Amino acid sequence: MASGVVGEEVRNKQVILKDYVSGFPKESDMQVINGTMKLKLQEGSHGIVVKNLYLSCDPYMRIRMARVEGPSVLTSYTPGSQPLTGFGVAKVLDSGHPNFKKGDLIWGTTSWEECSHITELEGLFKIEHTDVPLSYYTGILGAVGQLVGQFAKLMGCYVVGSVGSKEKFGFDEAFNYKEETDLDGALKRYFPEGIDIYFENVGGKMLDAVLLNMRDHGRIAVCGMVSQYNLAQPEGVQNLMCLIYKRIHMDGFAFFDYYNVYPKFLDVVLPYIREGKIKYVEDIAEGLDSGPAALVGLYSGRNVGKQVVLIARD
Amino acid sequence: MASGVVGEEVRNKQVILKDYVSGFPKESDMQVINGTMKLKLQEGSHGIVVKNLYLSCDPYMRIRMARVEGPSVLTSYTPGSQPLTGFGVAKVLDSGHPNFKKGDLIWGTTSWEECSHITELEGLFKIEHTDVPLSYYTGILGAVGQLVGQFAKLMGCYVVGSVGSKEKFGFDEAFNYKEETDLDGALKRYFPEGIDIYFENVGGKMLDAVLLNMRDHGRIAVCGMVSQYNLAQPEGVQNLMCLIYKRIHMDGFAFFDYYNVYPKFLDVVLPYIREGKIKYVEDIAEGLDSGPAALVGLYSGRNVGKQVVLIARD
Repeated sequence: MASGVVGEEVRNKQVILKDYVSGFPKESDMQVINGTMKLKLQEGSHGIVVKNLYLSCDPYMRIRMARVEGPSVLTSYTPGSQPLTGFGVAKVLDSGHPNFKKGDLIWGTTSWEECSHITELEGLFKIEHTDVPLSYYTGILGAVGQLVGQFAKLMGCYVVGSVGSKEKFGFDEAFNYKEETDLDGALKRYFPEGIDIYFENVGGKMLDAVLLNMRDHGRIAVCGMVSQYNLAQPEGVQNLMCLIYKRIHMDGFAFFDYYNVYPKFLDVVLPYIREGKIKYVEDIAEGLDSGPAALVGLYSGRNVGKQVVLIARD
Repeated sequence: MASGVVGEEVRNKQVILKDYVSGFPKESDMQVINGTMKLKLQEGSHGIVVKNLYLSCDPYMRIRMARVEGPSVLTSYTPGSQPLTGFGVAKVLDSGHPNFKKGDLIWGTTSWEECSHITELEGLFKIEHTDVPLSYYTGILGAVGQLVGQFAKLMGCYVVGSVGSKEKFGFDEAFNYKEETDLDGALKRYFPEGIDIYFENVGGKMLDAVLLNMRDHGRIAVCGMVSQYNLAQPEGVQNLMCLIYKRIHMDGFAFFDYYNVYPKFLDVVLPYIREGKIKYVEDIAEGLDSGPAALVGLYSGRNVGKQVVLIARD
């Protein structure tokens, strides 16, 4: 991992999007190029310069690879020039901001490149606890998909995972929604008395089957709809009448509304990690060059556990 | 209105369903037949016998005209024998139950016939206030569609009605969702800054257009989806990703969950009616024979205001 971090102007490898993506993304939709950057901030800058260590591969990134139309909190990536952006773990090399100093470890929004100049510091967090692997800060301390069922288990729920692979994550039962041909039948088997709480990260046919199997006054937390991101037109969801029949409560969530309770979240989750009460599976791809393949693999379910790209260990 | 209520066994005109309905219901899907019934309760009965005065025509009744499959709080009507059931206003002729006595006026679930023997008394309410027209108890004091926008107006909201006719009900603006070819455009005109609260009674394309025009953290109360009731297969709703983008809160409601707060509801709504603060439009069809046409008219939007069938004035 020769990152080229020497001297004033250094090589800076970057992953860029070649053009807007339609359908399933392919490795060839991206390109690894050699840019350059200066590692010292200009006088008066309030930004920071970081060395990126780990990058997070997240399903929502597919949405940003398309020309984003209609209402969205997400903006499109800029093909041809700017590197992808996403969550990552980084080390501060230079800082013009009082909250960050050289040597600090941070996690938050960064770019898919060796080093980044970050000027929007909202949503960057200093890493205070380093007794857990740094890579965890791309996932277990930020993403929700792998955690939510384990939290439910810890709270005494019966949990069935609808996952994109065979990994069970310690749930009571799990099935692969991509391979299950009769989702309604599967849910009826696993939940003969119906579903109280559904954490929605899949959408489409899965949501339709779930609606049929919810219990009265059941709750649906809507966090993502990964099955829809590669479709030009989303699948229509037909069973919304169940919202009335069963008086279902459905809420859309976005993590950035809850940044303010992040310290509280750490207080809960760090002890669970240290005590081994949360099982956390990572799939780490080594090197920025392996980034495009790692990211594309998310949509075929090739990864087992949280997909991370390692750029540098420190 | 010779109702035949004399002697022990009397003629009892009834509206029955000939067979399960598919597509738009037609008058000929129903039949008015002459049954008979006894007006005196048998010894030991805890039920009541009522003379039906007004019947309510409600969109959800279409669902019960089909063979109900899948999860539903609604059961199918029984073609060929039993009269339709629905909300109505009636007068007690005989009672075996301590809560009701001869001469009481009631509203609640009754049958589409001149006289009914009611054994399930849950969801029957004694009418205490007769300074408002009795027919109002089929609608303004029970149904929600016509009221909700007016309550919102009284609370200071800007209200746009998406209605099936040209009636505006005192809203700020209204449009006919059946005639509007560009629902998204219409909503953008009426709500340039987006929609905070949507009361859902239409479903399908209307819901899809609304989702695109909701504001962040907007709320959707789901009460009905009348545009879907005549379809063999519901339309797919495609814009559910907006639930996440906009962190929308969506709740299904059924009135019978709130029977316990009905007295409180009356305390609020009766003064509004007496003071003329609520505009209430009724479309009254005279005679049980006109029932099938009145009911069918709901789905073509022929009625203006609440559709009621008058069987007898007292």
